[in-house]
Amino acid sequence: MFLRNSWYVLGWTRDLAPGKPLGRVIIGDPVVVWRDETTGRLHAAEDRCPHRHAPLSMGRVEGDAIRCMYHGMKFGPDGRCAHVPLLETPPKVAIRTYPVVEKDSWIWVWMGDADRADEALIPDAHGIDNPEQPMRANSIEYDAHYQLVHDNLCDLSHVDFVHETTLRIATGAWWAQSAPRITTQDRSVRFERWFVDADLPGAQNGETVDTWISYDFHVPGIFVLRGARYPAGTAMECGMKEPVGIEPVSRNIEQQAVTPIDATHTAYHYATGLIGNTPEMTRKLAERMDVVMATFEEDREMIEEQQKIWDRTDPEVEKLFLPQDKGPFLMRKMMERLIREEAVSEEEDA
Amino acid sequence: MFLRNSWYVLGWTRDLAPGKPLGRVIIGDPVVVWRDETTGRLHAAEDRCPHRHAPLSMGRVEGDAIRCMYHGMKFGPDGRCAHVPLLETPPKVAIRTYPVVEKDSWIWVWMGDADRADEALIPDAHGIDNPEQPMRANSIEYDAHYQLVHDNLCDLSHVDFVHETTLRIATGAWWAQSAPRITTQDRSVRFERWFVDADLPGAQNGETVDTWISYDFHVPGIFVLRGARYPAGTAMECGMKEPVGIEPVSRNIEQQAVTPIDATHTAYHYATGLIGNTPEMTRKLAERMDVVMATFEEDREMIEEQQKIWDRTDPEVEKLFLPQDKGPFLMRKMMERLIREEAVSEEEDA
Amino acid sequence: MFLRNSWYVLGWTRDLAPGKPLGRVIIGDPVVVWRDETTGRLHAAEDRCPHRHAPLSMGRVEGDAIRCMYHGMKFGPDGRCAHVPLLETPPKVAIRTYPVVEKDSWIWVWMGDADRADEALIPDAHGIDNPEQPMRANSIEYDAHYQLVHDNLCDLSHVDFVHETTLRIATGAWWAQSAPRITTQDRSVRFERWFVDADLPGAQNGETVDTWISYDFHVPGIFVLRGARYPAGTAMECGMKEPVGIEPVSRNIEQQAVTPIDATHTAYHYATGLIGNTPEMTRKLAERMDVVMATFEEDREMIEEQQKIWDRTDPEVEKLFLPQDKGPFLMRKMMERLIREEAVSEEEDA
Repeated sequence: MFLRNSWYVLGWTRDLAPGKPLGRVIIGDPVVVWRDETTGRLHAAEDRCPHRHAPLSMGRVEGDAIRCMYHGMKFGPDGRCAHVPLLETPPKVAIRTYPVVEKDSWIWVWMGDADRADEALIPDAHGIDNPEQPMRANSIEYDAHYQLVHDNLCDLSHVDFVHETTLRIATGAWWAQSAPRITTQDRSVRFERWFVDADLPGAQNGETVDTWISYDFHVPGIFVLRGARYPAGTAMECGMKEPVGIEPVSRNIEQQAVTPIDATHTAYHYATGLIGNTPEMTRKLAERMDVVMATFEEDREMIEEQQKIWDRTDPEVEKLFLPQDKGPFLMRKMMERLIREEAVSEEEDA
Repeated sequence: MFLRNSWYVLGWTRDLAPGKPLGRVIIGDPVVVWRDETTGRLHAAEDRCPHRHAPLSMGRVEGDAIRCMYHGMKFGPDGRCAHVPLLETPPKVAIRTYPVVEKDSWIWVWMGDADRADEALIPDAHGIDNPEQPMRANSIEYDAHYQLVHDNLCDLSHVDFVHETTLRIATGAWWAQSAPRITTQDRSVRFERWFVDADLPGAQNGETVDTWISYDFHVPGIFVLRGARYPAGTAMECGMKEPVGIEPVSRNIEQQAVTPIDATHTAYHYATGLIGNTPEMTRKLAERMDVVMATFEEDREMIEEQQKIWDRTDPEVEKLFLPQDKGPFLMRKMMERLIREEAVSEEEDA
Repeated sequence: MFLRNSWYVLGWTRDLAPGKPLGRVIIGDPVVVWRDETTGRLHAAEDRCPHRHAPLSMGRVEGDAIRCMYHGMKFGPDGRCAHVPLLETPPKVAIRTYPVVEKDSWIWVWMGDADRADEALIPDAHGIDNPEQPMRANSIEYDAHYQLVHDNLCDLSHVDFVHETTLRIATGAWWAQSAPRITTQDRSVRFERWFVDADLPGAQNGETVDTWISYDFHVPGIFVLRGARYPAGTAMECGMKEPVGIEPVSRNIEQQAVTPIDATHTAYHYATGLIGNTPEMTRKLAERMDVVMATFEEDREMIEEQQKIWDRTDPEVEKLFLPQDKGPFLMRKMMERLIREEAVSEEEDA
C-alpha cells in the first residue's frame, strides 16, 4: 500500500524535452507531465486517454493542451477534452489532473486528493542548476520495493560495508562506529552527527578535519543531506552541536528521491555535489565525484540481491532489530501512520 | 477466449525451410507444420509428442511423416504413430492433426473442429510471390492482446497521428478528417472511401490524385486492402462510388494477418506492395517501401505501450465510444458473436 | 516438492574464489558456502542475514567467520552471531548452518535434518583435478523443472536423436537400438550395456571396438558414468557381462549433478573426460572433447523447449509409457518414495 496524499518526485525537470510530454508510473498510476508552450507552466494528468487507454505521454503538446497521438483526442490543462477528430463538439469527458510543481530541479506531483495538495509540504532541496555549485545527477530504477531503499537511506552505517572502498574512504569517516542523533519531525526524520578527526582524503601530512553531517529523510522518500568540513577542533568548539556561522572548508550536498513505481519497482533520482570554499577547490573536488556516483550502483546491487532473498523467504520470518535500525524504524512507523490516517480519512469522507 | 472454428495464419510459406518442420503457437496451442517430401503437401499437427511432450517442431521430416528427435517416435500425416525404437509394432496412439492449407503465400491452419473446416472460408489475399507485383513481407510479435491489433486495423484514422510523418505523407491523404463507409459482411467488415485531391508524394507542380481505398477485415484477423490512384476528378466521375473498369495510375496492396499466440502475445504477418501501371513506375515505387515498412514498428510501439496502460488499469474503467470506433466495434461484436455461437454449438454437441 | 534429506551439489570447488563466499539457491533455499581461512574447511549456512535479510554471499570471509557486508553482522561457523557494530555483546541469534562436504571436486550440502546427514550417502564420482586424467567441466542453468533433466539422463536412447550428429558419432554406437540392463540400488538406478562392434571414430580401415557403458544415477540427481573401449570380441569373451581385470584401450568418465534451484530452474554441473591407455592417446582424445561439451547445449535446447510445451499443456494430459522409460520411471518412483517417507517421518517427529 502506498501513501497517496503526498508530493512525489516524478523526475528531473531536465528529463522533459521541449514540446514532448513525459510519462512515468508513480505508486502504480501512469502519470503524464507536459510544459505549457505559452506560459511555461507544468501540467500533470493521468497518462491514459479515455478513448482507448493509449498513453498520452506518446502524444504531442499543443499550446497548453496535450493531444493523444493514437486517434487525436486533445485535452486542456484542466483535463477536459478540447477536440476530437470528426466531432464538432468535443464530448464532455475529462482526464484526471494532478497538482504539479517544479522546484529544486525536480517535478513534484501530488498523487492524492487535490484539495489537500499544499506546496508548503514540499521539502527544500538544492537543485542542480547553479553553475557555481555543480551537482551531478542521475536516475536509476530498482527491481525492489521502495521500503528497502528507504531503509538504506535511513541507516548510513552501511557506508562502512557496502561502500567500504569507495564512499567510506572518500568521506574519511567510520559510519558504523557511532550513531547519529535522530529526531522525528512532522513529516521527516532528522539525522545529525559529527565525525571528529576524519581523514581528509588526498590530504598530505595526515591532515584531519571535523565533519558535520545533517540530513532529513522526508515522507514519501526525499533525502536531503548537507555535510561540511571544518578545521580539526571545530566540533569541540561547537560543543558537538550544529556549527552555526562558521565557514566550512568544503561542503557536500545530496538530494535524492525514492519514488515507488509499483510494489516491485522503484525509481531513484539522485544528485550529489562537492563544493569547496573557493572555485578552485570546487573544481578539484568535482574530479572526485566519479567515486561518489559509483556508490549508487553498489547500493542497487545490494538492495536488488536483498529483494531476491526476501522473495525466497516466508514473510513470517522475523527480522532482528539492532540499534542501527532506529532511523529506518521511525521512518517506517511514520509512513505506516500516514497511510493508516489516510485510510481513516477516506472512510470518513465516504 | 478465442474463436476456434476459424482459419488462422500460422506464417508465411517461405518460413518453412526444406526438410524442417515449423512450430508456432496459435491461440495457446502449439502447432507443427511440415511439408510432405513426396507430394509437397503440407501437414499440420499438435506440436507435442505424446511420449514425453517434446516439441515435434524440433523433429525431422521423413517422407510424409515427422519424427520426434527426442526419443524417435514417428507420426504419419494422419497423426498415427508409425514407428518407435525398440518396438516392433508401434503403439496405437495418434497426435491431433489440423486441416492446413497453403494459399496466397500463407500457411492457414483450422484450429477448431476438423469437420467444419471449409476452405471457402479462407479469404482471398494476394500473395507475395508474383515477381511483377513485388511485395515486401515480414513477421513481428506483439507483447499485446490481439484485440488491440484488431482495433488498430479497423480504425485507420490513426494514420494521421501514429504515422503522421510516415504513412500519412506517403499516402498524401488525411485519414481522420472523414470517415469511410463501413458495411458488415458475413465474416468480415468492409471499409471503403475516396480521398479526393490527395497529394501525390514526390509529384512536382502540386499534382493531386483521387485515391480509392477498400479493405476487408476478416475473422479472425485478416486484413486485405487494395488502394488505387486515379487522375483527379475520377471520384466525382464515379459518383463517389467504387471505380470499375478504370485503370489506375498505381495501386497498393496490403495483406496482413493477426494471429493470437496467447492472451498476451500476438503474431503479425504483413506484406505490402506499391505497384505502378508500368514496370518502370513499379520499380520507382518500390523505393518508397521503406517508409511503409517502418510504420509497422510505429504501430507496435503504440500498441505495446497501450497494453501496459491497460495492464495498470482497472478493467471496470469504461472506455469512450467515438464515431471512429464503428469499425472496431463491429469487428469486436462479430468476434464475440462467433465465439458465443461456438460455445452454444459445443454444448449442443455434448 | 523436493527431497530435503539428501546431499546436493552446490557447485564446483573451483567456483569458490579465495576469501569470497559463494551463494547459490538449492531447492528454493538460499545457501552460502565459505572456506575457513585458518583450517581451509568449508562452512555452509543460510544465505540470509537475520538483521535485514541481506545475502551473506555478498559478505566477507573473516577467519572462520562470515561478515554481512550490508550492516556488518558477523557469524561464526556454528552460525552464531559473533559481532555487531555498536553492540558490545552480540545478540543471541544464529543463522541455520548446513552440513557441507568437499569431495570429488564438488561442494556437497545436506539440505535436510542435520542429524541425518551421513557422508557415506555421498556417491563416488571422479573429480576433475587429476592432471593425468584431464576432465572438462562446466555449469549451466536450465529454465526447466529438474524432473525433465533426470528423465534425460535416465534414458540415453535420446543420444541417437538429440545428439545424432555429435555424441552419437563420437561414441560410434546406436543408443536406441537396444536397451541397457537396468537395476535398482538403494538410492540409485544402475544402467549397464555393451555396444558390440561399435565404430571407432577417426579410425582407419573400419576398425571397431566393443564398448562397455555403466552408469549410476543417484538420488537426488548425480550421474556418474564410466565407459571403456576394448578390442572387438571382448564383449563375447566376457559373456556380455561386466569386463573385469581387462585393460581398456580408452575410457570415458562423466560426472554430472542436477541440482534444483526452484520449481522452474535447475542447475547442472557437468564434467567429462576421454582418457587413453597412454598419455599420447589421452592428449589425442582431449581434442575430441569439444564435440562432447557441445552436446550439453543440445540437451538444454531440447529440455527448455520441452518445458515450454509442458507449460502450455493441461497437466491432466497423460504421457505415453514406452520401454525406454523404464529408467526414468524407476528414478521418479524412487524420488517420490523418498519424498513421501520424508513427509511421514516429519509427521512422526512432530
